[in-house]
Amino acid sequence: MALVVVGSVALDDVYTETEQRTGILGGSASYFSMGASVLTDVKVVAVVGDDFPDEYVELYRTRNVDTEGLVKKTGKTFHWAGRYSADFSTRTTLATDLNVFAEFDPKLPNSYRTASHVFLGNIEPGLQHKVLDQLESPLFVAADTMNYWIDHSFDRLMALLPRLDMLLINDEEARLLGRSSSLTAAAKKILALGPKSIVVKRGEHGASLYHEKGSFFLPAFPVKQVADPTGAGDSFASGFMGYLAGRVPGTPSFEDLKQALAVGTAVASFTVEHFSLDGLLHLDANKILERYQTLLDLVHIDPITTL
Amino acid sequence: MALVVVGSVALDDVYTETEQRTGILGGSASYFSMGASVLTDVKVVAVVGDDFPDEYVELYRTRNVDTEGLVKKTGKTFHWAGRYSADFSTRTTLATDLNVFAEFDPKLPNSYRTASHVFLGNIEPGLQHKVLDQLESPLFVAADTMNYWIDHSFDRLMALLPRLDMLLINDEEARLLGRSSSLTAAAKKILALGPKSIVVKRGEHGASLYHEKGSFFLPAFPVKQVADPTGAGDSFASGFMGYLAGRVPGTPSFEDLKQALAVGTAVASFTVEHFSLDGLLHLDANKILERYQTLLDLVHIDPITTL
Repeated sequence: MALVVVGSVALDDVYTETEQRTGILGGSASYFSMGASVLTDVKVVAVVGDDFPDEYVELYRTRNVDTEGLVKKTGKTFHWAGRYSADFSTRTTLATDLNVFAEFDPKLPNSYRTASHVFLGNIEPGLQHKVLDQLESPLFVAADTMNYWIDHSFDRLMALLPRLDMLLINDEEARLLGRSSSLTAAAKKILALGPKSIVVKRGEHGASLYHEKGSFFLPAFPVKQVADPTGAGDSFASGFMGYLAGRVPGTPSFEDLKQALAVGTAVASFTVEHFSLDGLLHLDANKILERYQTLLDLVHIDPITTL
Repeated sequence: MALVVVGSVALDDVYTETEQRTGILGGSASYFSMGASVLTDVKVVAVVGDDFPDEYVELYRTRNVDTEGLVKKTGKTFHWAGRYSADFSTRTTLATDLNVFAEFDPKLPNSYRTASHVFLGNIEPGLQHKVLDQLESPLFVAADTMNYWIDHSFDRLMALLPRLDMLLINDEEARLLGRSSSLTAAAKKILALGPKSIVVKRGEHGASLYHEKGSFFLPAFPVKQVADPTGAGDSFASGFMGYLAGRVPGTPSFEDLKQALAVGTAVASFTVEHFSLDGLLHLDANKILERYQTLLDLVHIDPITTL
């Protein structure tokens, strides 16, 4: 089984109260690839400019990520810059220079087309369709999206939803897409639009899974200190999809999806408690398993039979 | 075992987009008493004015709440008015007329002094001390507080904390009192101030328990529709304390506190999905038990042994 990810690869400038780094490797596909590669074989589809440092391509390769689909174009790499408030409650975007990413036209190498799992990172829904069209018969398809596409590519997004086994969105996007202030009601409406399941990422409040078999909720892992929340959502997705592609043969059950959600929660916690990709670069399966167990303890409660 | 509650009894005007009622029974002690009386014997300590309708005293009595400590004074009853936004994300306070509540001087009837459990609702910490001083040897003492007392009665609140088995506060108050934007860090600091345990109420995001034996987290019950969030926190406390006083003999263990938290979560869900006290007035233990089980299913996840 192999996991294809399509998304952005960027050069980021990240500013927190205590640390700042410029020109560092970022983008949804980077966080996703580094996280998922702990658990499965990852094949990345993305575009970079001719300014993209070789050492970052090398970083992908040291994690055994297949970079045949990482295309280099003339021009500059996607550049993003952001500053977090001292308590990380708000983020100010200082720059979003799409550069070569503006003309991104994902083409899958032949060796990618038989992949069993695919994660469509947050790109224009028309491009997400295009990636899916190039895959032979994936077992499990998940996609991210954002407010901008809900507003500006609504029809293409609507046509994508029935092609998905899983839609991964945050709570704000879920409320917008499901047209309800109640997450439960919004999730129900989104399920009716076609995806087989939904995961709503709620940041520090955890994540919820909605599926025809039922719902599941897990809090965020209680990290001692946040260093840099960049890439938390993509790291979550990487653990989720990495677990399914690497550890779950066949079509995942509701129970498998719950476990994938917990693995994603664990992986995201390593990202946020370190700066940039640092938390993912030294990650291994045992560290994830340890936090998985801590999460289970955190929600463990005994039944009561009478009241 | 008996449960004493001290708090406000008010006449409320509540406005939501679809419903409005004026002059209705409200206040922390009302929500708490109606909820807890499903599970245990409740004795209320509060003050009302001479305008307080007999039918509301009668309502307390139909729920078998001991009203010997409900004192009537010359003047008007505490009056609160508030309006919720259409999606219940914000509440505008239209009036807070303390009236006789401004001179509240809680005196416990003799028959209250041997109570095993006490809930000190959100009143001035000096008055919370005064209530505690009148109790012989309570088994379990819980208190609520608010930002205003953290700012204005800090020393008296600090002196109260070591007298508490449980401090019940919301996330904003926890961050203020624990001086950290991280709830985990804030809770740790508050525990060091003396209370044996803390429950942080996080509204639609659920509630967390912090205790020397560990932490526990439970999401909110996924109600289909919110009708009126007034009293949700006091209803949560009522289920929590009602369970301990009515169903747990002796000093509660960490496991007992988790179960109490789940019972509180269930009771609060009935409050918010109905207007005013309506959800509590037709509540019984079986309905609570049913939602307790639903909550357990919502967080149930199987271990994984290898990854």
